[in-house]
Amino acid sequence: MQAIKELDAQLTVFEEMESAVRSYIRSFPTTFSKAKGSTMWDTNGKAYIDFFAGAGALNYGHNHPKMKEALLSYIAEDGITHSLDMGTKAKANFLTNFNEIILKPRNLEYKVMFPGPTGTNTVESALKLARKVTGRELVISFTNAFHGMTIGALSITGNSFKRHGAGVSLNNSVAMPFDQYLGDEVDTVDYLEKFLEDSGSGVALPAAIILETVQGEGGLNVANPEWLKRVEELCRRWDILLIIDDVQAGCGRTGTFFSFESADINPDIVCLSKSISGYGTPMALTLIKPEYDIWGPGEHNGTFRGHNLAFITATEALNFWKDDEFSKDIIEKGLLVDEFLKRIVSQYPELEGEVRGKGLFRGIACGVEGLADKICAQAFEKGLIMETSGPSSEVFKIMPPLNIDREALNKGFAIVEASIKACLK
Amino acid sequence: MQAIKELDAQLTVFEEMESAVRSYIRSFPTTFSKAKGSTMWDTNGKAYIDFFAGAGALNYGHNHPKMKEALLSYIAEDGITHSLDMGTKAKANFLTNFNEIILKPRNLEYKVMFPGPTGTNTVESALKLARKVTGRELVISFTNAFHGMTIGALSITGNSFKRHGAGVSLNNSVAMPFDQYLGDEVDTVDYLEKFLEDSGSGVALPAAIILETVQGEGGLNVANPEWLKRVEELCRRWDILLIIDDVQAGCGRTGTFFSFESADINPDIVCLSKSISGYGTPMALTLIKPEYDIWGPGEHNGTFRGHNLAFITATEALNFWKDDEFSKDIIEKGLLVDEFLKRIVSQYPELEGEVRGKGLFRGIACGVEGLADKICAQAFEKGLIMETSGPSSEVFKIMPPLNIDREALNKGFAIVEASIKACLK
Amino acid sequence: MQAIKELDAQLTVFEEMESAVRSYIRSFPTTFSKAKGSTMWDTNGKAYIDFFAGAGALNYGHNHPKMKEALLSYIAEDGITHSLDMGTKAKANFLTNFNEIILKPRNLEYKVMFPGPTGTNTVESALKLARKVTGRELVISFTNAFHGMTIGALSITGNSFKRHGAGVSLNNSVAMPFDQYLGDEVDTVDYLEKFLEDSGSGVALPAAIILETVQGEGGLNVANPEWLKRVEELCRRWDILLIIDDVQAGCGRTGTFFSFESADINPDIVCLSKSISGYGTPMALTLIKPEYDIWGPGEHNGTFRGHNLAFITATEALNFWKDDEFSKDIIEKGLLVDEFLKRIVSQYPELEGEVRGKGLFRGIACGVEGLADKICAQAFEKGLIMETSGPSSEVFKIMPPLNIDREALNKGFAIVEASIKACLK
Amino acid sequence: MQAIKELDAQLTVFEEMESAVRSYIRSFPTTFSKAKGSTMWDTNGKAYIDFFAGAGALNYGHNHPKMKEALLSYIAEDGITHSLDMGTKAKANFLTNFNEIILKPRNLEYKVMFPGPTGTNTVESALKLARKVTGRELVISFTNAFHGMTIGALSITGNSFKRHGAGVSLNNSVAMPFDQYLGDEVDTVDYLEKFLEDSGSGVALPAAIILETVQGEGGLNVANPEWLKRVEELCRRWDILLIIDDVQAGCGRTGTFFSFESADINPDIVCLSKSISGYGTPMALTLIKPEYDIWGPGEHNGTFRGHNLAFITATEALNFWKDDEFSKDIIEKGLLVDEFLKRIVSQYPELEGEVRGKGLFRGIACGVEGLADKICAQAFEKGLIMETSGPSSEVFKIMPPLNIDREALNKGFAIVEASIKACLK
Repeated sequence: MQAIKELDAQLTVFEEMESAVRSYIRSFPTTFSKAKGSTMWDTNGKAYIDFFAGAGALNYGHNHPKMKEALLSYIAEDGITHSLDMGTKAKANFLTNFNEIILKPRNLEYKVMFPGPTGTNTVESALKLARKVTGRELVISFTNAFHGMTIGALSITGNSFKRHGAGVSLNNSVAMPFDQYLGDEVDTVDYLEKFLEDSGSGVALPAAIILETVQGEGGLNVANPEWLKRVEELCRRWDILLIIDDVQAGCGRTGTFFSFESADINPDIVCLSKSISGYGTPMALTLIKPEYDIWGPGEHNGTFRGHNLAFITATEALNFWKDDEFSKDIIEKGLLVDEFLKRIVSQYPELEGEVRGKGLFRGIACGVEGLADKICAQAFEKGLIMETSGPSSEVFKIMPPLNIDREALNKGFAIVEASIKACLK
Repeated sequence: MQAIKELDAQLTVFEEMESAVRSYIRSFPTTFSKAKGSTMWDTNGKAYIDFFAGAGALNYGHNHPKMKEALLSYIAEDGITHSLDMGTKAKANFLTNFNEIILKPRNLEYKVMFPGPTGTNTVESALKLARKVTGRELVISFTNAFHGMTIGALSITGNSFKRHGAGVSLNNSVAMPFDQYLGDEVDTVDYLEKFLEDSGSGVALPAAIILETVQGEGGLNVANPEWLKRVEELCRRWDILLIIDDVQAGCGRTGTFFSFESADINPDIVCLSKSISGYGTPMALTLIKPEYDIWGPGEHNGTFRGHNLAFITATEALNFWKDDEFSKDIIEKGLLVDEFLKRIVSQYPELEGEVRGKGLFRGIACGVEGLADKICAQAFEKGLIMETSGPSSEVFKIMPPLNIDREALNKGFAIVEASIKACLK
Repeated sequence: MQAIKELDAQLTVFEEMESAVRSYIRSFPTTFSKAKGSTMWDTNGKAYIDFFAGAGALNYGHNHPKMKEALLSYIAEDGITHSLDMGTKAKANFLTNFNEIILKPRNLEYKVMFPGPTGTNTVESALKLARKVTGRELVISFTNAFHGMTIGALSITGNSFKRHGAGVSLNNSVAMPFDQYLGDEVDTVDYLEKFLEDSGSGVALPAAIILETVQGEGGLNVANPEWLKRVEELCRRWDILLIIDDVQAGCGRTGTFFSFESADINPDIVCLSKSISGYGTPMALTLIKPEYDIWGPGEHNGTFRGHNLAFITATEALNFWKDDEFSKDIIEKGLLVDEFLKRIVSQYPELEGEVRGKGLFRGIACGVEGLADKICAQAFEKGLIMETSGPSSEVFKIMPPLNIDREALNKGFAIVEASIKACLK
Repeated sequence: MQAIKELDAQLTVFEEMESAVRSYIRSFPTTFSKAKGSTMWDTNGKAYIDFFAGAGALNYGHNHPKMKEALLSYIAEDGITHSLDMGTKAKANFLTNFNEIILKPRNLEYKVMFPGPTGTNTVESALKLARKVTGRELVISFTNAFHGMTIGALSITGNSFKRHGAGVSLNNSVAMPFDQYLGDEVDTVDYLEKFLEDSGSGVALPAAIILETVQGEGGLNVANPEWLKRVEELCRRWDILLIIDDVQAGCGRTGTFFSFESADINPDIVCLSKSISGYGTPMALTLIKPEYDIWGPGEHNGTFRGHNLAFITATEALNFWKDDEFSKDIIEKGLLVDEFLKRIVSQYPELEGEVRGKGLFRGIACGVEGLADKICAQAFEKGLIMETSGPSSEVFKIMPPLNIDREALNKGFAIVEASIKACLK
């Protein structure tokens, strides 16, 4: 009783003090205090399995022990915390290791930009640079894309509610149909190509084409490798920069470090954030092919682009990628999720469900309005954190930490199924 | 010799791996590894007095022991690190204390929004909200304003190099002359008023007027209280929202927690970031008068708006403001800086210097082109970190941690003077 | 010889004095002095058959005798020439007759706006009004649309050369695929519908959809009645205003007064210009459903919106439409053109020709690059005025005055065929 | 009685059929049928002295006999009426004479562009070209400017009602204070200069500065020659194109053919329309310094850019300028107007009047709200056509045909004075 009162008291704080813009607290109405791996606890002591992973910012789970250790030791020794874009040992280490562990083995050569520690910031920096490189203004994005909430990033985001929030018209962008937007039989790259090659189409040659290989917020829409290849070819044909926004799909979420590895494409700019720091602390990178790194010093900047605590954990997190064990494990567990979801869809036809996704980035699109939200609400009560996405919140997403163990995964499955049953009753 | 080699090696990493956009490392070409209070050390063991304070993000100095302790203990206990905008104990504590220590004693009533952990993010959220509240699109900002680097914030920033970097035209904004922009004798609010009251002026009624009370990046231009009062009156007369961007000038930099306290104005929205976390970790707030908090849930969001490590140190940092001792001390030390700078200007007329600023946010505008940069370069060699600002980098800024002790301050003064002498030789 | 010298002298005037922007004089390098019906004469006395009709502004031929008579008499009697939007007898007569002869028999009820005497002006007024009525900003137009050259009209025009000429980014518009843009098998309205009904598509609900039922400049692309019907249905479903730009296709060019009559749709706004004055003098109308006529007085204006000389001839021109004889004749002659073009295409496969168009708005799209232009150049030498259109100038257009007699038509055909033969040699 | 009924009947036509956007008919509620010189007659036979001159489109009065004769003869002989931008004898004659009579004697060298026959069209073409020449996007205009109603021209127009009518945000423009906008003591060019030379001002280097030397719609604000000179100097210093919009102030209205002659400046682009055709028929010119005439063929076009009836009367109108008699007469009569207005202001202090203007472009700004409109309404009843301008319609304008005789002028004065008396009673 005491605990519940405290809990209520704390929720009152948010109602009284926090802006109406708050959202997840409405789906998960409690006060969290502790977390470890794939478990979160609220102040009431209740434990929750995490199938949400900080919307993709916690791919290595909460408070990973090795990162924690590195962080504690760095802080204890008064390692420099905040450094703008000065040189620091922590940054040097990160850069060296990122190159050795991530870039070189993948035959990728990129300059690394620290654009400010959020996803929207890396996207804004990528847009600026593409426009500078090409001297063009237009950027092509795709239906149901999500790239961030600042005006530049918002202009290439699909969601009408979020776009409307801009309060001004969003310009210099055109939305093209993502893979399979018009069903299985239409190759939407044909459409894009037609607009680009016809000088009367009303769509100018763009500075860049930006895309997520798997659209997380957009409803777990997966682009096929062939489609990605064709988009890359269009970019090469007209000297358009290809920007992959790997903020959510990157850092292993789809099974490989970069989401585009399996498509064998070579983006000109890559946006990373969310799990790049490994520990849930703010960090972002913009990777730039050396020939396009034509920034003037300070042409894009920001106060927190030198967040060394994040560099420390980010360097530690790179160790997951020293060999391909981690990748294999993600893919395997992803198949378990897929199997589970397929069974669910066939066993509960009332869901009118469709399995979507890739790696540990999967879910079910429900044909019944409002159902996905209800399932997530049930799951929360039963001790599982899970969220929806898609233009009508029609998809519930299984998006646990990548290093979740099979036991927790299965426990989570059980809660998901129980929640579905409860909702369909 | 060994150390120098290592240093060189590390700088090579940045040259090879980091984007050409890096800037401060060009002014301060070394690799930092450790910091404490107002001192920074590089990997070579060389100590530097910090008259820069992370461009205003380190008002309480580097790695403040109490914040450090709180942080270490929170991490050690697996306090939740990343929480989006879910409820957490760390956030609840911060909100309660922010209200009790900061808002209530100042008779301010604001809803608190966590807009993503950077200055540009709070500014973008403020612009969106002002446009939503008023249904208008235009925002008025001021000459030499700096509000951030994403497209929305950039549209109200003055610097042409940074604006040009956008690569697209920056719209829905008009720049008006800041206080004293046209010299002592012109009250620039007259000008603003004329444009607003004349329906043929070509300037529509704006959604908001946004300003920094002291323009840091713009060259330490201080708005007089009367000028601020008059701007506020215009806002009231035409139902324009008054937004104070206190990202750099706030959190005590000018002597009071909010920079606008001495002007006795009551902004509708306040943007805070930089030193709000106290420890140099990314965090930002948007404070909103309750009647204007009309956001829909999630209408503006971001992955790192729930950075609990920052909430922990931010809560600790609030203790500085429990009484007015800290404020008094800042003002006193500010006067010492002022005294020092005035002496310098009169003793070294070759500087063609003009003292500017307020609180511990001061500096000298040099009439000789390129001189301020040279002085900073000299200071760096002599063990002092100091930067320039202003449209032509003509102002060198004395901007130490607010809790710097007098001894360090004086040591810094000595280096500044020695650097000036060296440059004027 | 004398004449040729004079001709050369006059062309020199244009080269010396007229801007490089001049274009038709490059295709038709002579100096015209006289015209009557479907014949033009240059200063050299050479006669040309007119298969161009002032790009659709001379649907009743040059200097029609009845209009000429009315005009001469009005001028001789000092009828008022210029009246802004004051009331004049000439305007009252036009309005009354336009209502009686055009609107009422077609069961159309429109308020008539005089928006300034050019096509781009009526389009700009239509866009403004649609945005005012709906409170939305976006306008949807179609691939290969042409709506005019001022910034508002240009933003919904497809041609990249013309768009680029704006020198600024063209906003608040989205280009959708016109009928058959993606081939016979794709109904492009499906595509449009998908973008409108998906709240994540990145395309907001528009204020208006604007289209030409036959795209003249865009290459004689004809929208099918069913396609137009479906577009109208989408407009009704989402309260989008349907604007028909009938500047070129209207005033009988396709066989009926309005080009959309055969599709049985009921546009909310109709743009008319070009042949509305009948005599080639500047005039334009914007027709507005009464419920949407919410303009404030003078909210859109212009100096020459009261060009009474044009009202006089325009009123006279309406007599062509008092019964359906004229319409029948256009359609019949249109079929003659169609027959001729079909024969040409089959007889000269080297053209890689495709017959396009409707009414007396027809032509052949040539598959061979540059060929259409060459044919027109040949025709000019042989005494025929004919122009190309389409994104690559690939279509030559048979677009004579609507009242051309069969003899002239056949003479023109003969020149066209001879020109083709000459080019294919 | 009969006549009045007919009149009413005709006004009913406009109410029933014409859009609510109509405006002048509300101030002058009658139906005009005839006009000659400085007199207009309505269908009721009532005569009106014209102190309005078609808002500057009828500088040579209504239906000037020589132009009328030329026009009748051209039409009778089937001179070509409509020619797009093909070569015609009428155009060649106009160009030759314009060069000989206007340009050469003033040592001006311009290429002549026919941009479509309205003021807004010449302005749009000038903006496009300036942006193309400089590669910049921004255009600087002035407070209370009026340049037209299409989106490009509207973006540089001051009036908020008209701007709001755009329905979209108007971009790529900045409004600077016109001469004397801030009173006698402030030289507003200082202000403009400060914004241009300060790289932190938020105002980029513009493609062009566009201005009217006398702002007609803006309230008869006259720029001093020194002010114009200084603006030109700024343009030269930063390679900004100087565009003079002489649509209303040109063609003799201020006493010289171009309004800027007395200021001895040399604009890069000049916009002409309104009275350039002489007869009130639609026509416009864009004059371009040869070095800036870098248009591609057809990069800006329009159906009615070859309106030969207008070329015929325009050529005739040039004869007014063969010597300086006409100019002298305008200036003399302008002084009569000035004298009259000064007496009025001093004799009727209740007007709180301020005399404004230049040449035959003069009026009184009334300090009493709504008074100027009332005076015009009274004048209409008493047989005088006169309109107001200024952001609050506070200025009544004396703007007769330039060739009005002294008798009519004095008769007009008497009506103006009687109207004032009636209003002040």
